[in-house]
Amino acid sequence: MYNFRNDYSEGCHPKVLEALTAVNGESVIGYGQDAYCAKCADLIREQCKAPQADVQFLVGGTQTNFTAIAAFLRPWESVICASTGHINGHEVGAVEATGHKILSSQVGADGKLTPAHIVSWVEACRDEHVTKPRLVYISDATETGGVYTKAELTALSECCKANNLLLFLDGARLGCALASGANDLTLADIASLTDAFYIGGTKNGAMMGEALVIVNPDLQPDFFRMKKREGAVLAKGWLLGVQFQALLEDGLYFRIAAHSVEMAQALQTGLKELGIPMLVDSPTNQIFPIVPDALLPELEKVCTFEVWGKADAGHTTIRFVTSFATPRESVDGLLAAVKKLV
Amino acid sequence: MYNFRNDYSEGCHPKVLEALTAVNGESVIGYGQDAYCAKCADLIREQCKAPQADVQFLVGGTQTNFTAIAAFLRPWESVICASTGHINGHEVGAVEATGHKILSSQVGADGKLTPAHIVSWVEACRDEHVTKPRLVYISDATETGGVYTKAELTALSECCKANNLLLFLDGARLGCALASGANDLTLADIASLTDAFYIGGTKNGAMMGEALVIVNPDLQPDFFRMKKREGAVLAKGWLLGVQFQALLEDGLYFRIAAHSVEMAQALQTGLKELGIPMLVDSPTNQIFPIVPDALLPELEKVCTFEVWGKADAGHTTIRFVTSFATPRESVDGLLAAVKKLV
Amino acid sequence: MYNFRNDYSEGCHPKVLEALTAVNGESVIGYGQDAYCAKCADLIREQCKAPQADVQFLVGGTQTNFTAIAAFLRPWESVICASTGHINGHEVGAVEATGHKILSSQVGADGKLTPAHIVSWVEACRDEHVTKPRLVYISDATETGGVYTKAELTALSECCKANNLLLFLDGARLGCALASGANDLTLADIASLTDAFYIGGTKNGAMMGEALVIVNPDLQPDFFRMKKREGAVLAKGWLLGVQFQALLEDGLYFRIAAHSVEMAQALQTGLKELGIPMLVDSPTNQIFPIVPDALLPELEKVCTFEVWGKADAGHTTIRFVTSFATPRESVDGLLAAVKKLV
Amino acid sequence: MYNFRNDYSEGCHPKVLEALTAVNGESVIGYGQDAYCAKCADLIREQCKAPQADVQFLVGGTQTNFTAIAAFLRPWESVICASTGHINGHEVGAVEATGHKILSSQVGADGKLTPAHIVSWVEACRDEHVTKPRLVYISDATETGGVYTKAELTALSECCKANNLLLFLDGARLGCALASGANDLTLADIASLTDAFYIGGTKNGAMMGEALVIVNPDLQPDFFRMKKREGAVLAKGWLLGVQFQALLEDGLYFRIAAHSVEMAQALQTGLKELGIPMLVDSPTNQIFPIVPDALLPELEKVCTFEVWGKADAGHTTIRFVTSFATPRESVDGLLAAVKKLV
Repeated sequence: MYNFRNDYSEGCHPKVLEALTAVNGESVIGYGQDAYCAKCADLIREQCKAPQADVQFLVGGTQTNFTAIAAFLRPWESVICASTGHINGHEVGAVEATGHKILSSQVGADGKLTPAHIVSWVEACRDEHVTKPRLVYISDATETGGVYTKAELTALSECCKANNLLLFLDGARLGCALASGANDLTLADIASLTDAFYIGGTKNGAMMGEALVIVNPDLQPDFFRMKKREGAVLAKGWLLGVQFQALLEDGLYFRIAAHSVEMAQALQTGLKELGIPMLVDSPTNQIFPIVPDALLPELEKVCTFEVWGKADAGHTTIRFVTSFATPRESVDGLLAAVKKLV
Repeated sequence: MYNFRNDYSEGCHPKVLEALTAVNGESVIGYGQDAYCAKCADLIREQCKAPQADVQFLVGGTQTNFTAIAAFLRPWESVICASTGHINGHEVGAVEATGHKILSSQVGADGKLTPAHIVSWVEACRDEHVTKPRLVYISDATETGGVYTKAELTALSECCKANNLLLFLDGARLGCALASGANDLTLADIASLTDAFYIGGTKNGAMMGEALVIVNPDLQPDFFRMKKREGAVLAKGWLLGVQFQALLEDGLYFRIAAHSVEMAQALQTGLKELGIPMLVDSPTNQIFPIVPDALLPELEKVCTFEVWGKADAGHTTIRFVTSFATPRESVDGLLAAVKKLV
Repeated sequence: MYNFRNDYSEGCHPKVLEALTAVNGESVIGYGQDAYCAKCADLIREQCKAPQADVQFLVGGTQTNFTAIAAFLRPWESVICASTGHINGHEVGAVEATGHKILSSQVGADGKLTPAHIVSWVEACRDEHVTKPRLVYISDATETGGVYTKAELTALSECCKANNLLLFLDGARLGCALASGANDLTLADIASLTDAFYIGGTKNGAMMGEALVIVNPDLQPDFFRMKKREGAVLAKGWLLGVQFQALLEDGLYFRIAAHSVEMAQALQTGLKELGIPMLVDSPTNQIFPIVPDALLPELEKVCTFEVWGKADAGHTTIRFVTSFATPRESVDGLLAAVKKLV
Repeated sequence: MYNFRNDYSEGCHPKVLEALTAVNGESVIGYGQDAYCAKCADLIREQCKAPQADVQFLVGGTQTNFTAIAAFLRPWESVICASTGHINGHEVGAVEATGHKILSSQVGADGKLTPAHIVSWVEACRDEHVTKPRLVYISDATETGGVYTKAELTALSECCKANNLLLFLDGARLGCALASGANDLTLADIASLTDAFYIGGTKNGAMMGEALVIVNPDLQPDFFRMKKREGAVLAKGWLLGVQFQALLEDGLYFRIAAHSVEMAQALQTGLKELGIPMLVDSPTNQIFPIVPDALLPELEKVCTFEVWGKADAGHTTIRFVTSFATPRESVDGLLAAVKKLV
């Protein structure tokens, strides 16, 4: 079986496990108040060229999204995002659970939000009988693997500033976005263009963990209390600092992402050569082949994957995802298997 | 330095790390839908003699408390607990964040709630202009190390049934409660006397994780959605199943707890012999010596601990906590050091 | 000036004021626990042929919508409605403020939801990573004046039952819906086809007040506490019972509605004869003419109205609303004025 | 029967009804955007000597309390109040429903909070694992009729400023507080010493309505949206402006209060002369006699009242409340009746 089910379907990268093992016998102060987290936060501020940033470690993506959004907003304020945004369709209403409406825009197949989407909501909400849009949520990479260019992110950032909106970037797959051939952004660019974003660990080599970078000083006060209130403080908090240190101190995070993207791109290219169309030409570590329904049972015998949705009466869009744990042999093996099948 | 700061101030038990390491190379389905979690849930049902129970793995204690409580209650319902209860004083209003009022009762130094406390709130809330008490929250062990006897838990359970109240037991330190000399309860007793409870992993050998046992079938539907909504679903959910399997399959969980309790009791006995009084005679792994303020700087040189509060003008209550990682040498060493100091 | 701004832009019907004046000197028990409310609730149960119904009086529509919805749902459940539904677009996220996501469907110009819309959401939400649809919200009349037929409401009701969904009907303008020529429903039909609905007072002759009829017994327990928790209990609660008694005891409510509809229909017919198209052919007391932008300043000199939205580059949709206080002279006068203008 | 049940157990003052009747035929813009509300807000700003204040009309007290508190706080912030505070014991957890914890202090029989209570909570909450106190809630008059002096309110105000706390005053019975012989505060004093407060209409002559005065400009933005989100915007909003105009333009509000206080004081003095002790010596319009239980059935034959609670094994504390509608004859009549009974 070739595994392409998900990038959170394996444990952590061996180097991360090694780092966790190395500190396992130590006695450390809890709740992230330790030296490992402090040191790693410094490292992140440095790599982001954002000395003023507050770095907060949380356990998972949904948790990071709603904790940050609810911490940043006043009760009557709402969130603009793509209708395909993770907070809108995969988190059981976690943002609404904190009392905030999501204003979703239909976007293109690449999942990217544009200033036009934002302006449209701002104009629709001038009436005081509706919520006040205050935060724009985007993901890089998007849910369908899309990547924002520096020009695009700059335009979004300027549009947000012009409309008194905060810009929040969900970086659950930020590693693969930055490692993509379609990318021209750096961590420092993202830090300078957003109010807050996170560097996703869970989907890029960590056991668990997301590093939230709150760039805008106005959004920083009391965040620990908010995190605790939402159950988002890990008791053994240093485990997160240790993992991110292992990932970031010598570029492992980006090497993992580069490998994941390379494997996904090889698979995408190979499948296209075999005549299999894609829902969207993804430049990152998720790809979305559209396959004949008859092929599905055959595929299930050779690899793991997820069904993304019906494409038409006879076809289904599926998703293959790669990770640090995807060997070249899996890509080659799957391509060979598909070649036989089609 | 002798470490008595907390039972979540060390990594996981070596056997748990071994189990995590063993599965690290595998590809597993996410979100706790995997075979490890399923198998471990079976084991827990078996050990609890509760075949009907739903077992849900969550990451931390605060998260487990408010997710369960909010899942079980209707909006106008409230929670009865001891004023020293963890949900009342250590979780930044996480229960209130879900919209529910906490009705707290002043309890004795042992932190235990009694039927009289419950009845008092029930009577005070007959008026429809106040919340309706619907759930009783207790901890075993309590915040000050107290342990419920079978007679006490039975009385609470009967009082709850008589008043149409749910009984929820926070088991963050359940291991040490069950391992205590003061205990006569089994896991199966707890399962039969409560509507839901959890077996705490974080403070008894796991890296992280709490196993919530929802015994009452009425409270089980849709719990996964609730968990996801609260950010309490770990993406690599099998990591929790694997840890609890390692802890529970051959009694490691109870051996860890027995050791922790033994160390704490040895320390408590020793300190009392040295003339140091206790806030309360704790039968578990937390002890609460009352020390002269002048002793504090000296103690800080030899061991880690937490300040619990002022006892009187010249004395402070401190807390020593033991864990799987507390060697006998630490207990003996600290006692020797204190002997010199007093 | 001819007044067509809104049906809540006048005080109450003279008969309602008379009833309020008649009881003003009395001493009455507060919070709706009085004999006026009890008697009026009986009357409503009788007129609805729903002896099991719980009748609750609330002050306004937004309040009634979110209080009922939040009382009926569990935290992870969501609401299906038309994208034009009042709860989705005119209540500043009041439903989301209670923690529930709204799943909105694009509907036709008449604002009516169909079983197909419902089924589509049910199918989209089978995945446990999204909210569970549990309640369908419709309005009769709709936001654009549409009216459900008995066949349509029956189909919705059956679809809801088949999918374990509650059906809630916002009756802010129920009077005009029932008085419409397009209607074949009775109060009793609505009571038998929904789980809960309300008879709107504010927009049909009352000073304020909505009579919520909770037909489904499962939804009735503890509603007073929920109402109080949401600030929806009027201290001098009998004022609501007195008003609804005056409106319902001899058919005043329906005479007011019939008059309102008659006036609006006369205006709609007249405007169409003058060549002015409508956004939708409304059978109730709101009509939606599409007028050249150049006409707006002229219209503002002769009547009050609201701007509904841009129709195209040179045209604007406006809204005229009639009420008990709309004299025939206003309709004739406005038509004469428009005739001169076009 | 002599009526002493409550100050919200009668309709409105005849002058208020007259004012409502006078405008009943007019067509007015809704939601409080009308000229009546604007003019009345000006009047209130003038009487409060607070030209910068934002005046918002709401329907009831519970609604005003939680809407204001939730608008002013960030999610992790909490409210300090007396344990007898209305928000703590009479509003079904409405503040907690907005996600905020209430920190309640045991206070004296007069219901008054002191700086010592505040400081105690501030000190108890320095730890980041508990909520951050941010707002102090007091009532004037208190739940047991107590009145703050200027010195006391100044001390509270200074304590709040020194601890970065907002001061919010529930003025449901502000009229009677200001009319009390124990009072030395003016509306302008209250405006200068608090961040927000409200002038209660419901309990002092209005049909319904509370006028919230948001003195602190930082708390003013977007309040209308918050009000709408909480269902607290009356559609026919001018009805509130009209009532407060009638009450405030020529001092009617204060004459009503003076009468109420005079009647209650006469009753309190008379009862004391008859040997009936009071729970507390109340200087306002609520008094709290402690009567033998045997007297209760007799009292019920001659007057309405509320039971406040058991005083001891054989005695019960009851509450008599006076209002604009309490004639001197009721006081004299009740005293005569009690004289016969004791």
